[in-house]
Amino acid sequence: MVSTCVVIRYNHSMLSEFELIARYFTRPPAKDGPVRLGVGDDCALVAPPAGEELAISTDMLVEGRHFFAGADPYQLGHKCLAVNLSDLAAMGARPLGFTLALALPSVDEAWLAAFSAGMLALADAHHIELIGGDTTKGPLTISITVFGSVPAAMALRRDGAQAGDDLWVSGSLGDARLALAMLQGTAKIDSTLAEAAELRLHRPTPRVALGLALRGIAHAAIDISDGLMGDLAHVLKRSGVGANLNADALPVGTALQQQVLVTRRAYALNGGDDYELCFSAPVSQREAVRTAALDCATPVARIGSITAESGLVVSDASGQPLSIFADSFDHFSHS
Amino acid sequence: MVSTCVVIRYNHSMLSEFELIARYFTRPPAKDGPVRLGVGDDCALVAPPAGEELAISTDMLVEGRHFFAGADPYQLGHKCLAVNLSDLAAMGARPLGFTLALALPSVDEAWLAAFSAGMLALADAHHIELIGGDTTKGPLTISITVFGSVPAAMALRRDGAQAGDDLWVSGSLGDARLALAMLQGTAKIDSTLAEAAELRLHRPTPRVALGLALRGIAHAAIDISDGLMGDLAHVLKRSGVGANLNADALPVGTALQQQVLVTRRAYALNGGDDYELCFSAPVSQREAVRTAALDCATPVARIGSITAESGLVVSDASGQPLSIFADSFDHFSHS
Repeated sequence: MVSTCVVIRYNHSMLSEFELIARYFTRPPAKDGPVRLGVGDDCALVAPPAGEELAISTDMLVEGRHFFAGADPYQLGHKCLAVNLSDLAAMGARPLGFTLALALPSVDEAWLAAFSAGMLALADAHHIELIGGDTTKGPLTISITVFGSVPAAMALRRDGAQAGDDLWVSGSLGDARLALAMLQGTAKIDSTLAEAAELRLHRPTPRVALGLALRGIAHAAIDISDGLMGDLAHVLKRSGVGANLNADALPVGTALQQQVLVTRRAYALNGGDDYELCFSAPVSQREAVRTAALDCATPVARIGSITAESGLVVSDASGQPLSIFADSFDHFSHS
Repeated sequence: MVSTCVVIRYNHSMLSEFELIARYFTRPPAKDGPVRLGVGDDCALVAPPAGEELAISTDMLVEGRHFFAGADPYQLGHKCLAVNLSDLAAMGARPLGFTLALALPSVDEAWLAAFSAGMLALADAHHIELIGGDTTKGPLTISITVFGSVPAAMALRRDGAQAGDDLWVSGSLGDARLALAMLQGTAKIDSTLAEAAELRLHRPTPRVALGLALRGIAHAAIDISDGLMGDLAHVLKRSGVGANLNADALPVGTALQQQVLVTRRAYALNGGDDYELCFSAPVSQREAVRTAALDCATPVARIGSITAESGLVVSDASGQPLSIFADSFDHFSHS
């Protein structure tokens, strides 16, 4: 009947999951920042700036589907956060923080160290914090939810495009898709260009500064994750408009410029993984757009215009419509 | 040189992923609610109540780890959201909305219909909305991020427990763990009690109303997802205190009451999946705690007290310390 007294002093093997999260991902919240309570409680607490709305987006990346098995963990950590920051950029929102849910087949400390380093380096570059997370055993799966803030009514929504607007795109298109083709053995890239193209695929740059600079200038914006045509179609559908696109005005990536015309056009129009911003703005704002782009050192190109009638017409520089095969990435139709 | 003109009119097979999400999970945001823009843009937009902080939590559930392969999809949809709402409850936060990231091995419309119905029924019960999501092909994995709001400095944090506080728990403990043992073939439950025990496992009730009622009354709170002892240990560690726990004061679940003493104690102390609230409150607030619990029709039991010296001592009703094996669920140590 008399039992031995056992005082539980936070058994360490019992807490290994929590220590795992803590060791690689937890840092104290910045003083005076919007994060009032970070990792380690039931919830994080965030105080958004007064009068601003919270912009929220979530993404899930699965090994073998969104990235190769054995992908470099530093680049993977960067990319997982970058694709979410790209959604904030497309909304004109200022990043505040993010949560990470992570399923791992096993605890590989070298992998975790590199993955968290890649992710947190990008977080530091944007002055944001990892505010909460969950870690479990399972097939390698990474789900991030990102939070930003934007003054009420200033968000760059998909439904704001107006007939007559110019259509713009940032940076360059198609090199990420070309790098993927190279890695899959279906394309060859000059070795001097291959590394830069691979960086476009593995370490995309979210256009956060441009998104912020376009507040009050652009009517609508979206980020190009699934390919320009597919993503632009979302803007057109939600805005109830159409567009004319000049295929010869597309800013084609440096490596892709060395490929044949049909590849250049296909990858620039439907490549995916570009994480550039496609946005519409009134003709009267052309100079404002160029100034905003210069201010954040992000090139922009005018690639077409919004039309009152629905449908997306792709033409060459002479205005001749082109036959384009729609090939936007769909996670269930491409098995 | 002359190409056929093709006008892309939002090819339907191209958009099937988005339609899939839309069909089962998208509903228009409620008028005058905090959600200003829901599913369908790069980000959702949420306006939290003025002066309140945002409480945010994220969870990931993996098939075969957190739920059985072939689990009932309606119950699964309920449980995935319930475990996240439980984190808001433990913070004293009022639920506002949630995002869903979902990896599915295939598009099974019957499964999706039931899963979304279970999830959205619970969302409706709490007047919250699914504000964004991501769907992809992959091993069945569900990641939810939930958002609530709480007045600044009113959150029930883990680090607020004070020596002398009473220790309380809501509802009852251990029936979920007993149901799991039954399903695994290691325990037998009287058939009249089995169904209710299984409901505790598969359809937990997040104690949201109690969490709200405990604002300004409780010093600290946590929800019991991994077992009372393991979760309480987090509170003690973060608060820099210890606790005495009376094992005979634990509110043992109805089915578990029929089991032998060692099982009753083990499952009540370390069972996991209870989603009850464990909280500390000053002795002077005993009546306030009981009134708060009555007001939201949630039973509470006083199970011990917080001590200045660290460590968790579990005793029986006579004050005799018990030998208890710590067995908090850890996702990596139990493979």
